[in-house]
Amino acid sequence: MVRKIHVALIGYQFMGKAHSNAYRQMQHFFSPPALPVMKVICGRNRAGVSTAADRLGWREWSTSWEEVVNRPDIDLVDIATPGDTHLPICLAAAKAGKAILCEKPLANSLSEARKMLAAVRQGGVPHMLCHNYRKVPAVALAKELIDGGELGSIRHFRGTYLQDWSMSPELPLLWRFDQRKSGSGALGDLGSHLIDLARFLVGEIRAVSGLLETFVKQRPLPDQPTRKGRVTVDDASLALLRFANGAVGSIEATRFAPGRKNYNAFEINGSLGSLTFNLERLNELRLFLCKDARHSQGFKDILVTESFHPYMNWWPPGHVIGYEHTFVHIVHDLMQAMARNQPPSPDFQDGVANQRVLQAIQESAQSRQWISLRPR
Amino acid sequence: MVRKIHVALIGYQFMGKAHSNAYRQMQHFFSPPALPVMKVICGRNRAGVSTAADRLGWREWSTSWEEVVNRPDIDLVDIATPGDTHLPICLAAAKAGKAILCEKPLANSLSEARKMLAAVRQGGVPHMLCHNYRKVPAVALAKELIDGGELGSIRHFRGTYLQDWSMSPELPLLWRFDQRKSGSGALGDLGSHLIDLARFLVGEIRAVSGLLETFVKQRPLPDQPTRKGRVTVDDASLALLRFANGAVGSIEATRFAPGRKNYNAFEINGSLGSLTFNLERLNELRLFLCKDARHSQGFKDILVTESFHPYMNWWPPGHVIGYEHTFVHIVHDLMQAMARNQPPSPDFQDGVANQRVLQAIQESAQSRQWISLRPR
Amino acid sequence: MVRKIHVALIGYQFMGKAHSNAYRQMQHFFSPPALPVMKVICGRNRAGVSTAADRLGWREWSTSWEEVVNRPDIDLVDIATPGDTHLPICLAAAKAGKAILCEKPLANSLSEARKMLAAVRQGGVPHMLCHNYRKVPAVALAKELIDGGELGSIRHFRGTYLQDWSMSPELPLLWRFDQRKSGSGALGDLGSHLIDLARFLVGEIRAVSGLLETFVKQRPLPDQPTRKGRVTVDDASLALLRFANGAVGSIEATRFAPGRKNYNAFEINGSLGSLTFNLERLNELRLFLCKDARHSQGFKDILVTESFHPYMNWWPPGHVIGYEHTFVHIVHDLMQAMARNQPPSPDFQDGVANQRVLQAIQESAQSRQWISLRPR
Amino acid sequence: MVRKIHVALIGYQFMGKAHSNAYRQMQHFFSPPALPVMKVICGRNRAGVSTAADRLGWREWSTSWEEVVNRPDIDLVDIATPGDTHLPICLAAAKAGKAILCEKPLANSLSEARKMLAAVRQGGVPHMLCHNYRKVPAVALAKELIDGGELGSIRHFRGTYLQDWSMSPELPLLWRFDQRKSGSGALGDLGSHLIDLARFLVGEIRAVSGLLETFVKQRPLPDQPTRKGRVTVDDASLALLRFANGAVGSIEATRFAPGRKNYNAFEINGSLGSLTFNLERLNELRLFLCKDARHSQGFKDILVTESFHPYMNWWPPGHVIGYEHTFVHIVHDLMQAMARNQPPSPDFQDGVANQRVLQAIQESAQSRQWISLRPR
Repeated sequence: MVRKIHVALIGYQFMGKAHSNAYRQMQHFFSPPALPVMKVICGRNRAGVSTAADRLGWREWSTSWEEVVNRPDIDLVDIATPGDTHLPICLAAAKAGKAILCEKPLANSLSEARKMLAAVRQGGVPHMLCHNYRKVPAVALAKELIDGGELGSIRHFRGTYLQDWSMSPELPLLWRFDQRKSGSGALGDLGSHLIDLARFLVGEIRAVSGLLETFVKQRPLPDQPTRKGRVTVDDASLALLRFANGAVGSIEATRFAPGRKNYNAFEINGSLGSLTFNLERLNELRLFLCKDARHSQGFKDILVTESFHPYMNWWPPGHVIGYEHTFVHIVHDLMQAMARNQPPSPDFQDGVANQRVLQAIQESAQSRQWISLRPR
Repeated sequence: MVRKIHVALIGYQFMGKAHSNAYRQMQHFFSPPALPVMKVICGRNRAGVSTAADRLGWREWSTSWEEVVNRPDIDLVDIATPGDTHLPICLAAAKAGKAILCEKPLANSLSEARKMLAAVRQGGVPHMLCHNYRKVPAVALAKELIDGGELGSIRHFRGTYLQDWSMSPELPLLWRFDQRKSGSGALGDLGSHLIDLARFLVGEIRAVSGLLETFVKQRPLPDQPTRKGRVTVDDASLALLRFANGAVGSIEATRFAPGRKNYNAFEINGSLGSLTFNLERLNELRLFLCKDARHSQGFKDILVTESFHPYMNWWPPGHVIGYEHTFVHIVHDLMQAMARNQPPSPDFQDGVANQRVLQAIQESAQSRQWISLRPR
Repeated sequence: MVRKIHVALIGYQFMGKAHSNAYRQMQHFFSPPALPVMKVICGRNRAGVSTAADRLGWREWSTSWEEVVNRPDIDLVDIATPGDTHLPICLAAAKAGKAILCEKPLANSLSEARKMLAAVRQGGVPHMLCHNYRKVPAVALAKELIDGGELGSIRHFRGTYLQDWSMSPELPLLWRFDQRKSGSGALGDLGSHLIDLARFLVGEIRAVSGLLETFVKQRPLPDQPTRKGRVTVDDASLALLRFANGAVGSIEATRFAPGRKNYNAFEINGSLGSLTFNLERLNELRLFLCKDARHSQGFKDILVTESFHPYMNWWPPGHVIGYEHTFVHIVHDLMQAMARNQPPSPDFQDGVANQRVLQAIQESAQSRQWISLRPR
Repeated sequence: MVRKIHVALIGYQFMGKAHSNAYRQMQHFFSPPALPVMKVICGRNRAGVSTAADRLGWREWSTSWEEVVNRPDIDLVDIATPGDTHLPICLAAAKAGKAILCEKPLANSLSEARKMLAAVRQGGVPHMLCHNYRKVPAVALAKELIDGGELGSIRHFRGTYLQDWSMSPELPLLWRFDQRKSGSGALGDLGSHLIDLARFLVGEIRAVSGLLETFVKQRPLPDQPTRKGRVTVDDASLALLRFANGAVGSIEATRFAPGRKNYNAFEINGSLGSLTFNLERLNELRLFLCKDARHSQGFKDILVTESFHPYMNWWPPGHVIGYEHTFVHIVHDLMQAMARNQPPSPDFQDGVANQRVLQAIQESAQSRQWISLRPR
């Protein structure tokens, strides 16, 4: 008997579109023991949210998240709003006993993140953090290879997340450039993905040295283009890392790399091999194995589209999938976890751990010193 | 006022799945003036088709295509079955006045294809051929570039469609190895795509010299694995081409290229530039322009994910799409054409032209001579 | 005791420069039992050849090859002139008992090539054909892999040699566009390399279907730029191939592919794997092996710079070599063969076999039929 | 009238081989107003150096550098020995009034480097530092593009130099693992190249945060393999950088990246474009220009082999060159500078600046704080 999970989605912009697509599509490709029902989508703007409901496939719409998260017919609250609203929605939803899926980064600060984790623990509700890139088949395969010992001891993690969309100084002072709404700039938006991948694939981070930079320091106000306001977030952030297991690493997130559109890329070097990944070619994983015959060693382009590859239940080999499927896999994993009463992964604990690293990078950038992170 | 197009889909295997996904997804990303209604799916096997209806999102199912194509509540018949049934379904649907979308190759022979074209013309019904790779954004961009004169006069087309799924001699004698069911092997299955791309991007083909080869000549019978039957189709097919506009070319389709999963790739050289494409990296187009500054000329990797690129109404730049979207774009173009009472493209005339080339390659392979194709 | 081989080089243009460099450099990297002595360089133009002698490191120069090939102090005659002079120089040198290294293609016609082979056989002199791309370490590694059975039975050879230097219609009617001097155009110049690689790596060719095309049919006369003369060679040549061992293939040589500078590239598919090569990245070989673990199969980029790779006695791993080293390897192999009294490879027999294929492609292009080549 | 520069080369191992090749080859490809004469090669081991003299093309050999640098018939002393001998040789050569070419890093410490700079200034002798990667045609082209403003204001430098040769714990405690002989490990050997490229292409570095790590802490003694000695240098070093012009950056040098053989790679992002380079494909430069037509923007693979590209006086387009040519270009530039009485570049001042960054990284790694570098 398949369980039905009734979903309320808060937010209908980019992430709202991506999550809706995932709820619509999952059941046509996977058969987990629970299936989502697209009950209600929620947003502040009446015209916007009603159009979105129709367009994205939701039965109802609402302009009040406070009301929605308390509806008895809702099982799961999906928080896909800017970071400054994650905390209040989460507190209310946890109190109402709802399972929660939350967009990343979990919150705009470590203290908020901790409150959210406390709330879901107190409420005893399932909680999942939408770090969707763990669910790219190639990344999941990387995890399998590392866990299977194919790379040996990990020595290096080298991650960059490069974009170029905010280079123009004409671009107005959007919410993403306002620290109060977004918490940080490239660091939280892009860097948090790298931290999650580093933690997922290598392990806990024990020390960081960070650098933040804002190249365009003032931008036109959205509603008064002739006046400018101050950008209060970073355009670029870099950090050196030391991991608990002895590995060393670096991450860099920037929105000022011309030609890099969504270049979330990493390389991992272990004692027995190396692997590299790049989100702009997300169906591929590059792998070097020291154990290959010596005359024919080399980096191998694995096309991760075989039926025995993680999540690949879509099309025949070589028929590539796109970005949106990472969210479908998130929904699949969440449904499966809820049906089996198991904790989904990644969860809010991962969110808090991630936020600790983000905060340490910010502190380090300010103090110009390495910051150590104690084991919890 | 948006028009509703009620669809009957015949076939529920690989192509049935791909077409169903397209009908489900199209309206969530595009807003053409007509929208499909997923009315009924049809297949011979009662258990199979009923499960598929549920899984793929169809309201009803049926085991009789004869009945379905005559239902008054159906506007569009989508033929996604093996090639030997295209003709009878098409004749019936055309007679019943239905619009028709047909999988490629149009038929198992040129004479069948001509009968189908005659039928849709006589019925006065819209007809579209599902050569979906025309609808890859990168291929559509290639077409724009060529039509805009960026490559100058075209001199060379070099197309290969390489796969490796049928290499094992243990693989049984499926319908795809039976000339009566499939018409031909790699030639019709893969080569027809290359011919379509060549015609779309370069122009009409005027002469061919062909070669067909079957590497595994016998295969186990599906229901009697200890006995073997004869493979009656080609494992690989190659041809040299001369185009009406003076360009020369070659195509090769094979299922015996280890490591090539869905390697539908081509290079085009013109008097002013070159471009290359590979379906395994379908979000990318490589382009060389002679007009670039001489010290910095080179092949350019265009990530075809910008909002101003053809069909790219999905996600932000750099957020790549997958194979399945080509069918969504087919459905979009068909809906738009039907709403506007314009002929969809490609159509059955393209199917007949394609089939003429396929047949000429077969004849040439047999006679060991070039075969010329007269302008129609 | 190291034997000294005294060399006379005929020709001082591009190939003269490349061969001279090879004679100069070989002994600094290899230690074969014979070493070349750069005795005399020969050319028609007194000023040109005397400058070249100085520049390229030759002790003496001469304007008479007739005299030079008969000098008693010469052991080896190296023919690096345009194709129309290969035959007379070869006949004289063979008669004089000199070893001969000859640039490719061996001659301007099959009958000439046969005369040359007869002459060296009658003279009992060592003969080598300068198909230098056999000596690229990555190509030699490909040969080792194939001979070692790593690719299984070969099914496909797919070779292209693409350049773009002759696209401009302003380019004058050089000797390369004159059939009497060059024998053919892209076919002999570039296609002969592909044929040699195909024969080296796959085996003998048994049938061909060819196509030749000249895109720019008239060009300015070198000495009278306002007048034009007829181009009597092909700008592009294509052929389908059938090999003696059952493999099928294609080759294409063109000088009309914008952006392709020296793109001598091939792909080979066998029953157990595939490999690809591209001369513009000559330090790399791409290899796919079916025997790799199924979850991590992929095309592998082998950087062919390890000390245990063929010919790699140059620099540490990863320190790449360039085009010119292929000639150094030719000279090395020739010295070794001569010192050991073994036949060098490739030799004039390969040249005749190559010329048979070239001629068959020309005949086929004319007759528009397949041409079969009998085993010798 | 061409000036002759009589050279004494100290050192005959890897760098001795590379430098000798450069002296031998330069004049065959370039025609600067001064030419080197390969007078004498010097090394401690009589058998070794006498063999090398013969093999590498030197007229004489010697076991005493003290004697050689004082010979009146020597114009140029080339120091290609391990770092601990650079200072004494340099002091003696400068005192003797010889021009000096020195391998990188200039010295084993900043104070040594300063003494060397003082010595050559006092001696009034020409001095050049052998940072050969500035002389890769693709790197020189990158410099031209940046200086020409094609990339706008530089914001990011991202450099990695990855190798894997020292991963095996069985590898003995060579001089490269001994801080007294080599100064540092990956940092000085590889990192100094990245620092030189960063300074060359972006500008002066004003602050660093560093990290050093030694993965294999003990290694077998070369002469007593059953006993182990302590590794006193870094296996890997990373640093964050701030440049004087406002750009930010990172560098990483490691010998523990399986599959990376000589992966000296960087990416530079400016306000108008980006470029990337990788020494394993040294004939290529990747370039993205924001000014390209928006529908066809992309990273471009420039094959830097055209006659109008820097230093490309070798072969026709597409005929690639190898690693060794970077030294030929160094010798060319040095000869030209000496003949014209101009200072060569890079010189010992670059060496001191480089060493300041190396030392700051070491200090920072120890103090766990950012270190600022004052403008000189």
